[in-house]
Amino acid sequence: MPGYNRRVDLITGSPTRRIDMLREKLSREGKDVILLSTGQPGFLPPRKLREKLASMLLDDKDLKLYSYTPTPGFYEVREAVAEDVRGLGGPNLDPEQVVLTAGGQEAMFAALSTILDPGDRVVLFDPTYFGYKPIVEYLGGKVLWVKAPVENGYQPDEEELKRAMDNKVKAVVVVTPDNPTGRLLSLESAKLIADLAVERDAWVVVDEAYKTLVYEGEHVWLYKLAPDNTIAINTFSKDPGFPGWRLGYVYGPEWIVSKIRLMSEELVYCPPSIAQRAILAYFRDRELRMKHLEEAKRFMVERRDAMLAGLSEVAGARYVRPGGSMFVMVDLEKPLARVGIDSEVLARRLLEEESVAVIPGKYFGPSSNYRLRLSFATESPERIREGVRRIARLISKIAS
Amino acid sequence: MPGYNRRVDLITGSPTRRIDMLREKLSREGKDVILLSTGQPGFLPPRKLREKLASMLLDDKDLKLYSYTPTPGFYEVREAVAEDVRGLGGPNLDPEQVVLTAGGQEAMFAALSTILDPGDRVVLFDPTYFGYKPIVEYLGGKVLWVKAPVENGYQPDEEELKRAMDNKVKAVVVVTPDNPTGRLLSLESAKLIADLAVERDAWVVVDEAYKTLVYEGEHVWLYKLAPDNTIAINTFSKDPGFPGWRLGYVYGPEWIVSKIRLMSEELVYCPPSIAQRAILAYFRDRELRMKHLEEAKRFMVERRDAMLAGLSEVAGARYVRPGGSMFVMVDLEKPLARVGIDSEVLARRLLEEESVAVIPGKYFGPSSNYRLRLSFATESPERIREGVRRIARLISKIAS
Repeated sequence: MPGYNRRVDLITGSPTRRIDMLREKLSREGKDVILLSTGQPGFLPPRKLREKLASMLLDDKDLKLYSYTPTPGFYEVREAVAEDVRGLGGPNLDPEQVVLTAGGQEAMFAALSTILDPGDRVVLFDPTYFGYKPIVEYLGGKVLWVKAPVENGYQPDEEELKRAMDNKVKAVVVVTPDNPTGRLLSLESAKLIADLAVERDAWVVVDEAYKTLVYEGEHVWLYKLAPDNTIAINTFSKDPGFPGWRLGYVYGPEWIVSKIRLMSEELVYCPPSIAQRAILAYFRDRELRMKHLEEAKRFMVERRDAMLAGLSEVAGARYVRPGGSMFVMVDLEKPLARVGIDSEVLARRLLEEESVAVIPGKYFGPSSNYRLRLSFATESPERIREGVRRIARLISKIAS
Repeated sequence: MPGYNRRVDLITGSPTRRIDMLREKLSREGKDVILLSTGQPGFLPPRKLREKLASMLLDDKDLKLYSYTPTPGFYEVREAVAEDVRGLGGPNLDPEQVVLTAGGQEAMFAALSTILDPGDRVVLFDPTYFGYKPIVEYLGGKVLWVKAPVENGYQPDEEELKRAMDNKVKAVVVVTPDNPTGRLLSLESAKLIADLAVERDAWVVVDEAYKTLVYEGEHVWLYKLAPDNTIAINTFSKDPGFPGWRLGYVYGPEWIVSKIRLMSEELVYCPPSIAQRAILAYFRDRELRMKHLEEAKRFMVERRDAMLAGLSEVAGARYVRPGGSMFVMVDLEKPLARVGIDSEVLARRLLEEESVAVIPGKYFGPSSNYRLRLSFATESPERIREGVRRIARLISKIAS
């Protein structure tokens, strides 16, 4: 049997995917599972946009809809992205600073595989999105965890971050609005990260997947604070909401973006053409876009509030009211630690005994083992309330 | 300025892309360029399939069309792929041996990044598809070139291959039907590769992108000859022909495919959902599929024959009549070497003086510097004839 690269074994696979498989099995057995696990928006892209795409498909001359596109995507789309970022209050980008990718995942891999050498240290906040650790480790990098405690509103701990940055760090990865906690990075934390990165010649890799889903407060643009050091990861999976179509983008200093472009060519050759055409139509119809965005935010806020109302009844739960994104991270250390039940066991019991799917906190960082990530992206407000009610029930059963 | 991984500088970028940029510049200047450079099929996916997709887009309940899919793709699509491979005379695969990817490029990267360790040796045939060398080198691998001379019908040289395999080779990459030469691997060559790989515990990575575009002769299935050692790379870019939608697949032994699946999750999370739905509709309508394939082959054969008719008039040109794929590789060593003009210079002069775009041979291997890759995928038979006529004209001007 020929060999393989053992670093692949560091990739454990997405916990969302494993929960999905369990859930599908339960569904086949006739169980109705309440989905608080996935970041999949519970709405379709706007009808008007879908109609436009349908008519493109019926055009017998539109070979471009099916063709390879330039590696970084169509120039018009990169222009539209730069304009959109500017319109949202973000930095003034040249389209050459933008590379479209096959979703945010490819954006992450392309960026990290361009900047990291084996042995490089990368700061991840605890908790953070589970997608970063496996990539860093496959690439031979070493993760330095820096706590972002619930007591601190899930903002990073200043002293711990400063100490970590003394270790010749190649990059700091930060997600804002955050997955899994829903917190917006404070301007103060953002400035700290930016200043330390500039001082220590490190990259800031900022994941802005949820930047248009901000309900209270303001998105902070790290690129504006450290333009020579910041690489931003973005996606169209949440807005307009076609995660399965795989389109995202990276922006940053032109010199490094041109290298990420080469890397991206090796990874996927070019981003999907039909998703690019969809985004172009979406961005060019400003009214449609703003209307859809308002509706999407209303959809999310209603569900977030249903979740928060329920959570206030879970004994011992601590969390941060999400200013953005689609998630709440609930810290259950008080009720769970005492009885020695961790997040993995709790999540399994929730699925089996209460038919509620959640993601165990341990995938988001070593100190998140008594936490759960709850998503309010998919289910109705009523089912979200019911799901949280069942969580409260199991917790009180366990703790009593 | 923070640093980056210097191995990225080994990626030089696709020559097709650079030619495309030059061509676009010339088009803007009003020049009509004959495109013999790109592997982009000159036809759309069948109308009936596009109609089906359009009606899916107008369905207001079909959330699945936009959602993340399982990492290896929808199970039904993997089943349909396994069935299709069987139907084409290929091996009997379990759907668990199939992972769908974001195009053949991601299939290549996912497979090679799963099996290669830094320092590993990889045999590439000279000439071979230009996409393999940069991936191998980015991953820290070392390319061992083995000649596949035009005198040998572009089949690999047996002695050279045997000698190369003495060097603890991790993988042999072979493309059949071939890009850039159009040759089908002979059963004899296939057996030699398979036997050597089994004997030396090496992988055979076989790129079957053009396996349904065979005009004369038969596609040889390397997996059947060495099932424990073969990883096959496939794409839907050529059949049904939507390269921009980015869908391909890998098949091989289940244990390694399950690792490639994990790698693929890190690279793109999941393959595009809409392309998967399109393929499912295509494969389930057997009549539509077979009809489209016959039309696609007729389209290609007509163009290939136009190209061959023209080439017989190019003084000193050697080539192999393509049994499949979309390419001819023309060896011009006789007229060019004498006057010291290499393929890069010739390609540039062809574009500037004759408005014909081709890919210089040097990108396909170190001994291919007096060769050109000509594609018959895109232009009409008349324009292909005209393009080859202009090549003949420039060659005779240069050689005289």
